[in-house]
Amino acid sequence: MRGVIMHTAGDVRVEDRADPTIIEPTDAVIRLTATCICGSDLWPYRGIEPADHQVMGHEYVGVVEEIGSEVTNVAPGDFVVGSFVISDNTCEICQAGFQSKCVHAEFVAQTIGTQAEKARIPYADGTLVKTPGEPSPEQIPALLAASDVLGTGWYAAVGAEAGPGKTVAVVGDGAVGLMAVLAARQLGAERIIAMSRHPQRQELARYYGATDIVEERGDAGVQRIKDLTNGLGAHSVIEAVGTQESFMQAVGATRGGGHLGYVGVNYDVQIPGIELFFAGIHTLGGPAPVRRFLPDLIDLIWNGAIDPGKVFDLTLPLEEAAEGYRAMDERRATKVLLTLE
Amino acid sequence: MRGVIMHTAGDVRVEDRADPTIIEPTDAVIRLTATCICGSDLWPYRGIEPADHQVMGHEYVGVVEEIGSEVTNVAPGDFVVGSFVISDNTCEICQAGFQSKCVHAEFVAQTIGTQAEKARIPYADGTLVKTPGEPSPEQIPALLAASDVLGTGWYAAVGAEAGPGKTVAVVGDGAVGLMAVLAARQLGAERIIAMSRHPQRQELARYYGATDIVEERGDAGVQRIKDLTNGLGAHSVIEAVGTQESFMQAVGATRGGGHLGYVGVNYDVQIPGIELFFAGIHTLGGPAPVRRFLPDLIDLIWNGAIDPGKVFDLTLPLEEAAEGYRAMDERRATKVLLTLE
Repeated sequence: MRGVIMHTAGDVRVEDRADPTIIEPTDAVIRLTATCICGSDLWPYRGIEPADHQVMGHEYVGVVEEIGSEVTNVAPGDFVVGSFVISDNTCEICQAGFQSKCVHAEFVAQTIGTQAEKARIPYADGTLVKTPGEPSPEQIPALLAASDVLGTGWYAAVGAEAGPGKTVAVVGDGAVGLMAVLAARQLGAERIIAMSRHPQRQELARYYGATDIVEERGDAGVQRIKDLTNGLGAHSVIEAVGTQESFMQAVGATRGGGHLGYVGVNYDVQIPGIELFFAGIHTLGGPAPVRRFLPDLIDLIWNGAIDPGKVFDLTLPLEEAAEGYRAMDERRATKVLLTLE
Repeated sequence: MRGVIMHTAGDVRVEDRADPTIIEPTDAVIRLTATCICGSDLWPYRGIEPADHQVMGHEYVGVVEEIGSEVTNVAPGDFVVGSFVISDNTCEICQAGFQSKCVHAEFVAQTIGTQAEKARIPYADGTLVKTPGEPSPEQIPALLAASDVLGTGWYAAVGAEAGPGKTVAVVGDGAVGLMAVLAARQLGAERIIAMSRHPQRQELARYYGATDIVEERGDAGVQRIKDLTNGLGAHSVIEAVGTQESFMQAVGATRGGGHLGYVGVNYDVQIPGIELFFAGIHTLGGPAPVRRFLPDLIDLIWNGAIDPGKVFDLTLPLEEAAEGYRAMDERRATKVLLTLE
């Protein structure tokens, strides 16, 4: 099969890879319908994380081709969406809703690499969720978004306790930040402040439910959020950038007793304990347990209640993945969908 | 009146101070029945925080002597307990239960200094809670504990979501850690692991409800907590030390999706963002909103349901405050009560 290999930072190629096969009786092999490039794929692309002939990709939708002898929840021919973290969905941690910390957790990005024609999915029963039927071509991007950016933005909004009566501030206008705006709206937030200085992304943020836009960053951004909230700060803040500045901006924008949900942190971020302490806030962060939300997200997409697919602003065939990486690296695209047919 | 002045690090004296008077119509002046020395008072004592002729003390119980014209909840003669943070108890932040972040918040330690015969308490209606009657001498230490260490330990346990079915690990065997054990027990935790290597404090931890003692620290301490919890970590972890090592020990001991409550952090603590991220945990920290819990804590003490006064293991007259500081600094005492009669 064909698949993306990152030879080294900045050097993305589509090459022949061995076809995946069933190894464990709990595995499934899927044929991908679509996959995509994630903001986090830019970390090795930019040399922030190491890359040495690394398989790439962790977002996926597709059709089950083959299952192991113990798989019962999905069958060949089913259209499925999976999370970017493998989970058995039965352990104590999964049952508590934190499937990304499953005792059998495995990052799809590191070993499987779904920027490819096929993928072996371990713990298929726990990881994959089948759709009510064969999706239309228009539904594919939305379902693909559910695999990571939508699920991650949703988790950030849940972690920030976005809901009725709440003012929510979203730090970051990338795909995850935009999906967090969508989630905050769906969760009933009263006011949603998107922090963005990029005109197209501001427009998309408004489309997804932002009521206010703040262009300032850092201390000035914090001050603007306070100005908009009687000096108190937002009830709920979502951090969807992951730099030192953006993290501390999010801490500063959260009112005392408020909630901060964060879903990505660069390796060099150091949080001054005393600042976090005196902020007096709740935090919840980590790789999102997308699996917790997948059934509901699929329903919302199937019923047309949400349209997360608009975060993809460039679509290319898998063979042109290198151009997709370049477009995202140069911020010519927010998120790139890779087609496989 | 007489009161403690810390001239400089390590130099504590009891001297004459001006008697407090009503300044704002929302003030009360109280005559203290007892006060005490807090672990955090050792920070300036040890030169970790600056001290230049600093008034000291932020825990207090006593009798109202005089009130401003707008005070209605307490009256002269009332026996009262107050929080170590002034709060109006009416603003939006207070109403949400985070009185330590009140829009009128003021730290008693910095400007009032309750290691003294009297104290002016701003926002008396919001800050002070009166007891059902005149307490017995035996109830005084318990009520004094409610003013900070009990309220702070309680908040840590609430922040860690200690409760039925939960395994709670408490990092730190000082007064706050011991009170967190008491709180976890009262909140119905199934298992309470106290991390302590000090025999008398282990004994007191068991008295307050600890079911297990772990003597290891750092990575070894984390491993022991995992060994005791099927490899998962504790549901609820309370951090009551505040050093870099203890904070990261607490993060490591918390299971994915679990809750960490922390109630003190040294100025030099830097939390690696990536470690907190991949831990995938909830956190809640900050100066405790003791005022939220005071009415319930006073009830529990009044009814004899809890006995937090045992954390005081040395009682001295105010005039001997310097010896009290020395005893705590040298760890000859866990917590020192200062009498005023």
